[in-house]
Amino acid sequence: MADRTDTPCDLMLFGALGDLAMRKLFPALYQLDRAGLLADNSRILALARRPLTIDPFRQQLAENLRTLVPEAEQNPEVIDRFIGRVDYLQLDFAEESRFESLNEWRNHDNQLIVYMATPPGLYGVIARNLKAGNCCTDRTRVVVEKPIGHDLESSRVVNDELGEVYQETQLFRMDHYLGKETVQNLIALRFANNLFASQWDQNHISHVEITVAESVGIEGRWGYFDRAGQLRDMVQSHLLQLLCLIAMDPPSDLSPDSIRDEKVKVLKALKTVNPDSVGQNVVRGQYTAGTSEGKPVPGYLEEEGANRSSETETFVAIKAELDNWRWAGVPFYIRTGKRLPEKLSQIIIHFKPAPHYIFDPDQKHLANNKLIIRLQPDEGMALKILTKEQGLDKGMRLRQGPLELTFSETFSEDRTPDAYERLLWEVMRGNQYLFLRRDEVEYAWRWVDRIIRNWHDSGEPPKRYAAGTWGPVASIAMITRDGRSWYEDV
Amino acid sequence: MADRTDTPCDLMLFGALGDLAMRKLFPALYQLDRAGLLADNSRILALARRPLTIDPFRQQLAENLRTLVPEAEQNPEVIDRFIGRVDYLQLDFAEESRFESLNEWRNHDNQLIVYMATPPGLYGVIARNLKAGNCCTDRTRVVVEKPIGHDLESSRVVNDELGEVYQETQLFRMDHYLGKETVQNLIALRFANNLFASQWDQNHISHVEITVAESVGIEGRWGYFDRAGQLRDMVQSHLLQLLCLIAMDPPSDLSPDSIRDEKVKVLKALKTVNPDSVGQNVVRGQYTAGTSEGKPVPGYLEEEGANRSSETETFVAIKAELDNWRWAGVPFYIRTGKRLPEKLSQIIIHFKPAPHYIFDPDQKHLANNKLIIRLQPDEGMALKILTKEQGLDKGMRLRQGPLELTFSETFSEDRTPDAYERLLWEVMRGNQYLFLRRDEVEYAWRWVDRIIRNWHDSGEPPKRYAAGTWGPVASIAMITRDGRSWYEDV
Repeated sequence: MADRTDTPCDLMLFGALGDLAMRKLFPALYQLDRAGLLADNSRILALARRPLTIDPFRQQLAENLRTLVPEAEQNPEVIDRFIGRVDYLQLDFAEESRFESLNEWRNHDNQLIVYMATPPGLYGVIARNLKAGNCCTDRTRVVVEKPIGHDLESSRVVNDELGEVYQETQLFRMDHYLGKETVQNLIALRFANNLFASQWDQNHISHVEITVAESVGIEGRWGYFDRAGQLRDMVQSHLLQLLCLIAMDPPSDLSPDSIRDEKVKVLKALKTVNPDSVGQNVVRGQYTAGTSEGKPVPGYLEEEGANRSSETETFVAIKAELDNWRWAGVPFYIRTGKRLPEKLSQIIIHFKPAPHYIFDPDQKHLANNKLIIRLQPDEGMALKILTKEQGLDKGMRLRQGPLELTFSETFSEDRTPDAYERLLWEVMRGNQYLFLRRDEVEYAWRWVDRIIRNWHDSGEPPKRYAAGTWGPVASIAMITRDGRSWYEDV
Repeated sequence: MADRTDTPCDLMLFGALGDLAMRKLFPALYQLDRAGLLADNSRILALARRPLTIDPFRQQLAENLRTLVPEAEQNPEVIDRFIGRVDYLQLDFAEESRFESLNEWRNHDNQLIVYMATPPGLYGVIARNLKAGNCCTDRTRVVVEKPIGHDLESSRVVNDELGEVYQETQLFRMDHYLGKETVQNLIALRFANNLFASQWDQNHISHVEITVAESVGIEGRWGYFDRAGQLRDMVQSHLLQLLCLIAMDPPSDLSPDSIRDEKVKVLKALKTVNPDSVGQNVVRGQYTAGTSEGKPVPGYLEEEGANRSSETETFVAIKAELDNWRWAGVPFYIRTGKRLPEKLSQIIIHFKPAPHYIFDPDQKHLANNKLIIRLQPDEGMALKILTKEQGLDKGMRLRQGPLELTFSETFSEDRTPDAYERLLWEVMRGNQYLFLRRDEVEYAWRWVDRIIRNWHDSGEPPKRYAAGTWGPVASIAMITRDGRSWYEDV
């Protein structure tokens, strides 16, 4: 899997003036160029609705790079080369007749990649128009961004529309979390280290925590966010993906379908949340006014553009359970929210304690190992183990010491690539293992839909929490009922 | 076990002008005083043959402390207080009649501790004379240093002589390795961390390495060392103790006898080395001229005072095996020697690889976890785990990264106490768990005696190795035959 591709690519980027393209995709493509990973004749066609000619577009792109790429990584020569690869074409994505012109741009020896950095509502029409415009071969690869629909029903529509034009093996459904170094490292960690592999089950693990906390609020996207909510926006994608990578059975090889087959098995094994359990095992919250980084901030309903009667959740905590052999009886406590005290993504594996305890009775609560996998900040891992306290008068007092592995420190000669670099590179290599298969997306929606339906049926509004706190007290109560607590690094 | 003792002690130190007392015991006692761990009325009676009065002795002791205690730890007030606790008495240890005077010195409210920092040949006579001089109660604690004899037979004589005067519960047989922080930490590491405890057996561990390497040569002790050799001097004590702590079954509590019962079980399970296996599984070596720290050094037979025809070993490597359920089929490769390339004591637990390997075939040799327990230099632990290599073009290439825990760095607020401080403190508390029971010493001799007898019967001289190398090539061949190699940190 370490092979490089020398096939040049033609990348059609729909939505090239949008936020995603400008903030993430162009800088990532530049980095690939800088790393020598773009084949010589690779080209990019920027597509957007705005009437612009090539020169002002390139100028805007160059400025954009100079703003977003760290100065030490700006190489004027590479910037020139990269800009030189980019063409701009003004296009109304719905106007079928104009798609013929895309075909003129193509170099038919190059691998065609279509990146739809657009609202999902346009995926179907773009796909159809590409087909009509003859810009569509069996080898074309198509990248689409989440959300794929906003529930199972609508995601099926999007997937059907794409499926009319492309085979599943051509579709690269993005979840940028899968491009994070630490997330991929989960695969190495779990399956290359028997110390962990042999303990990765209900015999040895008591429970798992997954936290994806944001400190920001809505940031001017109120209308967009309010139609989705935290469950659809974060849990259906990122948190369930993390849960899959933690929970999946070992794949027999690293091929994309071996890995995705195992992830789908996890999603199918997720215990359905029913009306009885939704009140106990799911907490939804909405932030009220509070503080963020020491400054007062408004509540969700006071944000710019807010509808004062919205019941959309900005926080979710779920006690998820898996009905399978590996995880029976092991809860996965997941939570995500906006306006929490810090930006923090981490997974914590709580191992069970030893069967017999022989040290100081008052330290018994310490006696379980924890593996902490940090996605941000500071991607890395720490293993909490117990050692003897030093100092003569401490006897056999225990102390929790971390065995630490921080990627940025330990492997400092390597730059940690951004998730989009990794994912774009995998698209160019045609490797789907970090992209979602249709059934993954749909099983995730099925589980999430059920929760939303139950919320709706219960008629209960979200629980309030002050901005700058760790969500509603019900989230703490949920885990406390099981005699546990959300992990705090102390 | 973290309780302090407030009972004052009267410590009679036989051999008070010797190397051990001056270099190790007095500085350790000073440190205990500095840490506030000597009860107010604790006193020390320095006993030696040399005619000295108290003042010059105290002066010598104060100078000694100022030389050996790190400057930052010298507290003039504490030095004065400590010196004030010490009396000196000139005594011929064989002269029974003089022992009455010891009794006059004693404060009968204090806990009496007798420390025999003398050649083992004197233990019996000192014990008898103390008894004759009425300096002997059921509560007296007696500390003796290794070696206890030089084979099973002679160790029984020493133990019998001590046993005529003292109960086993009064005897504290020292092995200073047991006072090292890391060695004690083995108990916490193994039994407080289920992550390790549940894998500590032949199902999960392929083999264990124990290396105690010295860079020094004989240092003016040729005659003494030549009568013993590396097997008696190091393996019978330190290396077998380390092996016991690694291999023992979990004790049901931390009481001294629970721990020592388990250690004895290990010694009893050691597979006897017989004439057939001694050639394969035991390597003895003797260093020839070579280099040490860049300088030329003489061979063992050219050292000052050497007998040119000596066949005493300065290096031993043994493939030890245990006939029990936990360790069947798991070799313990142990080696120790003088004039090796560095001063290094470490234990390496090699875990078995995962049952199925899915990463790059050419990295398969990496795929086992290792736990490295360093005793010196830099006491600490490292767990070698595999993570994904960073860098986009690396695909799923693995890389071996350490999760590191160095005591001195991690817990920098704490000073690591010297082994003798710990052990003296345990004597004062009356806790025998870090001291050898009679049966431990004797089972260790039984195993070692058999090896020596086989060497003798085989008539083969030790294999030569140049000073500054890792011992005879036969040591490498021994482990290579099993498809393994001595661990090198790279």
